[in-house]
Amino acid sequence: LGKPANSRPDVVAVTLADIVARFGGDLSGDAETTVIGVASLDNAGPGEVSFLSNPKYQRKLASTQAGAVILTEASVAACPVASIATPNPYLYFARLSLWLHPPSRPLPGVDPTAQVLCQLPPSVSVGAGASIAAGVRVGANSVIGSGCAIGADTEIYAGCRIGARAIVHSGAVIGADGFGFAREPDGAWVKIPQTGRVIIGDDVEIGANTTIDRGALDDTVIENGVKLDNQIQVAHNVQIGANSALAGCVGIAGSARIGKRCTVGGAAMILGHLEIADDVHISAGTLVTKSISVPGSYTGTVPFLPHADWLKNFARLRHLDAMADKIRALETRLAELEKKSS
Amino acid sequence: LGKPANSRPDVVAVTLADIVARFGGDLSGDAETTVIGVASLDNAGPGEVSFLSNPKYQRKLASTQAGAVILTEASVAACPVASIATPNPYLYFARLSLWLHPPSRPLPGVDPTAQVLCQLPPSVSVGAGASIAAGVRVGANSVIGSGCAIGADTEIYAGCRIGARAIVHSGAVIGADGFGFAREPDGAWVKIPQTGRVIIGDDVEIGANTTIDRGALDDTVIENGVKLDNQIQVAHNVQIGANSALAGCVGIAGSARIGKRCTVGGAAMILGHLEIADDVHISAGTLVTKSISVPGSYTGTVPFLPHADWLKNFARLRHLDAMADKIRALETRLAELEKKSS
Amino acid sequence: LGKPANSRPDVVAVTLADIVARFGGDLSGDAETTVIGVASLDNAGPGEVSFLSNPKYQRKLASTQAGAVILTEASVAACPVASIATPNPYLYFARLSLWLHPPSRPLPGVDPTAQVLCQLPPSVSVGAGASIAAGVRVGANSVIGSGCAIGADTEIYAGCRIGARAIVHSGAVIGADGFGFAREPDGAWVKIPQTGRVIIGDDVEIGANTTIDRGALDDTVIENGVKLDNQIQVAHNVQIGANSALAGCVGIAGSARIGKRCTVGGAAMILGHLEIADDVHISAGTLVTKSISVPGSYTGTVPFLPHADWLKNFARLRHLDAMADKIRALETRLAELEKKSS
Repeated sequence: LGKPANSRPDVVAVTLADIVARFGGDLSGDAETTVIGVASLDNAGPGEVSFLSNPKYQRKLASTQAGAVILTEASVAACPVASIATPNPYLYFARLSLWLHPPSRPLPGVDPTAQVLCQLPPSVSVGAGASIAAGVRVGANSVIGSGCAIGADTEIYAGCRIGARAIVHSGAVIGADGFGFAREPDGAWVKIPQTGRVIIGDDVEIGANTTIDRGALDDTVIENGVKLDNQIQVAHNVQIGANSALAGCVGIAGSARIGKRCTVGGAAMILGHLEIADDVHISAGTLVTKSISVPGSYTGTVPFLPHADWLKNFARLRHLDAMADKIRALETRLAELEKKSS
Repeated sequence: LGKPANSRPDVVAVTLADIVARFGGDLSGDAETTVIGVASLDNAGPGEVSFLSNPKYQRKLASTQAGAVILTEASVAACPVASIATPNPYLYFARLSLWLHPPSRPLPGVDPTAQVLCQLPPSVSVGAGASIAAGVRVGANSVIGSGCAIGADTEIYAGCRIGARAIVHSGAVIGADGFGFAREPDGAWVKIPQTGRVIIGDDVEIGANTTIDRGALDDTVIENGVKLDNQIQVAHNVQIGANSALAGCVGIAGSARIGKRCTVGGAAMILGHLEIADDVHISAGTLVTKSISVPGSYTGTVPFLPHADWLKNFARLRHLDAMADKIRALETRLAELEKKSS
Repeated sequence: LGKPANSRPDVVAVTLADIVARFGGDLSGDAETTVIGVASLDNAGPGEVSFLSNPKYQRKLASTQAGAVILTEASVAACPVASIATPNPYLYFARLSLWLHPPSRPLPGVDPTAQVLCQLPPSVSVGAGASIAAGVRVGANSVIGSGCAIGADTEIYAGCRIGARAIVHSGAVIGADGFGFAREPDGAWVKIPQTGRVIIGDDVEIGANTTIDRGALDDTVIENGVKLDNQIQVAHNVQIGANSALAGCVGIAGSARIGKRCTVGGAAMILGHLEIADDVHISAGTLVTKSISVPGSYTGTVPFLPHADWLKNFARLRHLDAMADKIRALETRLAELEKKSS
């Protein structure tokens, strides 16, 4: 289930000159450089175009292997490879990515011992002993591992891969578009094509009506032995480490990375771009707003009370800062009195 | 996509006498008044019956254009139009609405350039270039705009309208019944028929397994350019303004109105009947319990801590009011001492 | 809709000797004792095997009617019936349960007045006047009561029972496996077979994309007149009392029991193994972490604020305990001063 050597072989190569002719921008570097796809600054190779939108990440330019980078005028000098300068690199990148549209490579065929009760595109691969229920939709170029059990009415979008012995319950949706948009000056949203895949390891269980989005550029990855309960939302480019277990109604925002052997209680939420270490346990209902680097249990929930008691106590939350100020003032005045009386 | 001039043309007209003969109640006004449907006090016209259940809204009676209003004996005198008095107006209204059952008007036909891989009722309208995947269920009288992409296994209930270029991901359910019930004296619930529709503008994206309920009387409205992530719940009669974007797992309770260009972070919840101004940004995990009239960012979440620290600190929340009392007592005693020592 | 006298008639009987030969362990008692299934300590009869994993529940051994109990060496002496001792009883039980695989008894046939637009297994029973939409999947041995309306693309797993006049909206999944796993020493999870059913009473409504898991051993039970909104997650072995109503996005963790006539606001979460009394009302967004024995309203949410005010006030939550300490110190110092000055 590793990433194939070249996951986008069917893309027609285009030159940077072609790109600028179509989308505008100021080209620096060899106009005849050919590229076949898009990728992140960290992962792009010489045949791929990347982008730099947030100046915070400008240091990543130095080491990029991209064939070209879309960036603002201010970053051109710092870019060691070809570049296209434009006022809104993310928006430009969205349009380019939509044009290049990279599909992934299928490994077609259904093993004769698999039991398939739905129709499959010819490009899909299904392993030995897998069972796919009626009403399942499997997108082109998908790979279903040996011994998988896929429940009725699940949806597996094009290009996704599911390892051996996975169990996918009804209504799960694997590989729908991640939620990624750039913004026009008037407030309208421009869709960023979601060209990554969902890669699921061996022995994974996925609950009913759980959704796992495909990656924007790189893949969304669920490692071996992960167990996901019902109604979970896993956003694009999330990575969940081996043997972690997530209870019902959990949400994981985009690009969060969760370590191995973690547990996440029901309805807990993990914000985007965070890193959670191995062996971390998040209590039910907790909102995780920062990365966690030390294993252990973490909690952030409020006790419930009879409604009248709650009204009396929790209204104080709006004035906690004032309460702290009053305590400080009392301390100052008391110290003065103590000095006088000593 | 505007509201049609008359959205309930097929209803047979009935008189108030017919209604009272069937459901009881004390009629005031012309028994031969004919009505063809039900509507809210604000929106009802002379051919529609409305109701007043909560005395808080009695002032709305003065300006209603309804043909008749179902209300309690106590409100009869304040009603400028015909009325039917009954001890439980909401329950009466539920039964009447169930009887009148107003269907909406279809605009039938599939554009020859649309690609439709599922079966459609003949009353459905599908615009140019739309693509509807296999396994999609579209209810009678629905309208699918030009250029829409509707993912597999989505469900679009009868009468809903989707504008141009919408993208609807797998497992979304558009137009299921809103959650509305009146209560019998013994605690049992009586279903309020949900006769509104879901009206979705142009360029809207709707994530996997997201649900948008039809309105109870008026419609649920999603304006142009709105982007909804996965696993979102939009209750009946909600209105979401143009170009607003809602992240995964958000819930919007009934009749809430969200302005234009708002953003709502993952798993935030907005309670019912609230009004959120344009350009408001709600942080992830925040519970919005009051209307917001000033643009800006709003947050209401608690920091998470290592579990032992959390136990020590958050147990205090049950005693915040007592802490405030202690601070006040200290201030009084200290002031007295200061007076003495001065 | 009561539990049938013997819900597992098709299981082949095995002896305790068969079990030990297959899975190991130290047998105490008659090796020729025959059993046909698995059940909890409270509910197991002489033909069933149960287990004791948590020493907290050792007192339940005294009254068990099980044919045999899987337990640790330390509990053998306290067991009044046959036992199999093993270092990890839960894991052993998981493997045994997987082997015995007890199916439930069907009551086959479709009433001629029912309208069924999908294919059904011959073992399913459908009552008078029920309507089952196209694309619905109903598992073997399921029972659908008279007058039910089952929406398109819902999934009802094998053996589940739905009472009269239920309304099930699109995308609901009833009877998927509960989320139950034992853990191997290396951190990998071993699936506990979920052999209970979902038993739904009369006049129940179930919202779009709501999920109700089957029980692990005993059943998940939704009593008469319960109303469930959209996107709700009901875990295995939950029991919801008659005429309770749950709003959208609510989650109920495993084995929680909710009383009659309760209401639960949107996105509230109830943790596992809790008992909630009759006539309890939980506010939206509240996390219920303890059982509630007194009827009334309960709340545990934080007020939201403009983001800057929130930052100032809510950061104090991490230091509430220190604030309480400071108040105590002030009280001591002030009392001393007052003594001096008197």
